[in-house]
Amino acid sequence: MRLIARRRVQAVRIPEGRRHREDVVALEEPLEIRVNGGRFSVTMRTPGDDFDLVAGFLVSEGVVAAADDLPAMRTVSGIGLDGEPTFNVVDATVTGRGVAAAAERARTLYTTSACGVCGLASIDAVRTASAFPILPVGLTVPEGLVAALPDRLRAGQDLFDATGGVHAAGLFDPDGALVTLREDVGRHNAVDKVVGRALTEGRLPLSRSILQVSGRASFELVQKARMAGIPVLAAVSAPSSLAVELAEEAGITLIGFSRGRSFTIYAHPERITP
Amino acid sequence: MRLIARRRVQAVRIPEGRRHREDVVALEEPLEIRVNGGRFSVTMRTPGDDFDLVAGFLVSEGVVAAADDLPAMRTVSGIGLDGEPTFNVVDATVTGRGVAAAAERARTLYTTSACGVCGLASIDAVRTASAFPILPVGLTVPEGLVAALPDRLRAGQDLFDATGGVHAAGLFDPDGALVTLREDVGRHNAVDKVVGRALTEGRLPLSRSILQVSGRASFELVQKARMAGIPVLAAVSAPSSLAVELAEEAGITLIGFSRGRSFTIYAHPERITP
Repeated sequence: MRLIARRRVQAVRIPEGRRHREDVVALEEPLEIRVNGGRFSVTMRTPGDDFDLVAGFLVSEGVVAAADDLPAMRTVSGIGLDGEPTFNVVDATVTGRGVAAAAERARTLYTTSACGVCGLASIDAVRTASAFPILPVGLTVPEGLVAALPDRLRAGQDLFDATGGVHAAGLFDPDGALVTLREDVGRHNAVDKVVGRALTEGRLPLSRSILQVSGRASFELVQKARMAGIPVLAAVSAPSSLAVELAEEAGITLIGFSRGRSFTIYAHPERITP
Repeated sequence: MRLIARRRVQAVRIPEGRRHREDVVALEEPLEIRVNGGRFSVTMRTPGDDFDLVAGFLVSEGVVAAADDLPAMRTVSGIGLDGEPTFNVVDATVTGRGVAAAAERARTLYTTSACGVCGLASIDAVRTASAFPILPVGLTVPEGLVAALPDRLRAGQDLFDATGGVHAAGLFDPDGALVTLREDVGRHNAVDKVVGRALTEGRLPLSRSILQVSGRASFELVQKARMAGIPVLAAVSAPSSLAVELAEEAGITLIGFSRGRSFTIYAHPERITP
């Protein structure tokens, strides 16, 4: 089972400069979970142990509690957009009490503190269409400014200072000045709060903005940047494979491991100038 | 707006010992989002800037793209289980093209790499009933064993070593031996994979197990421990307020900031022995 993807990236170190190298990112792919043939849920996950994932998810949802409740699981193969076979659908056979529980759960919709692109049930529908095109040229950002953003974000994280454990998202202008900073137990909530403020103030699309986030860059964060028309997204930690793919496709500059004097550019490096 | 909660905790430092002190945790509460009066989504968030959150979420979901699409939002007050007023429902008035988009999204269900208790649409239904009682007595764990678990988890994180950015969950037996370790871009997926393996092997409830996770302890992780009958949950980083509340209510020992020689016990310290 392949758990990683290899990408060509540009590693920036200040003041040494930029070099091209290969980087390894964790694989992130959607898994559609079906119960007795009916659509139940879609989760973004690292492939591998998918039957365990489905079984555990059904335990968490109160659908099964013993192996007897889940007599069979099978992978439904499909064909991806690239024409290659995919194994991203698992159909679970549930018996007894769980059948009614599954039907009840499937009717409803829930978003947790760490859930961002909720509201879509099929793998094909994961990529939401944005009203705002990402311009191929336009904003450019000097390396030194990119490197300075994590400290500027950190300086405004009052809730982190108090608790030691919340996420943050900061929107910066082309000069690196902070426009909006929000903290939340959910990383995607912090981004939604930043984007929502911009919508209310009539500032969408955010085509002259840089979004700096704490933590990792997942698919959902790139999607949120895409929907708000943000051309540059920087994360303090690692991106997933799907985050890189979507950024590449959407024309978004994606930066990871931004750590003060160094960072890695995973997609569209042309906006980052020396 | 209150963003934090204060809790009495027990701070353990080895070999110095244990002391009682007050700790500050980030507030986590569910927010129900309605569109034109109809149920749309529930998200776990830190209260504050809720209108920004709703507006940004609707941008991310492709429901609105300009302030004109969202002419009004209002907070629907309710009464909590404790009899106090709550402000955890926002109804957004959406016009134009967004009305159909909202209806389409609301019909579907999506779980991201960071989403765990998906499948519930009302705040009242957040607490899922478990088939397995957490025993008030039973498992006890020495302080030194708790302190050793993060390093034992870290030693098995091959995918983290390769990528620098994935979550992990490890199930340990009462002697601190690793039973199952899983890594995933989604923290909740890693836990589901561990629990699912146990279900398949007929080992539920996991009443003699300790679950050690990387990162923070959110409500959803405590809920997953609850559903699998796991009595002790330890996280490397901070818990949220709702994680502590649910652990307290469910009889689960909740440990945060587990950092080798020190950790903090947020709920049910009686299982942790000197």
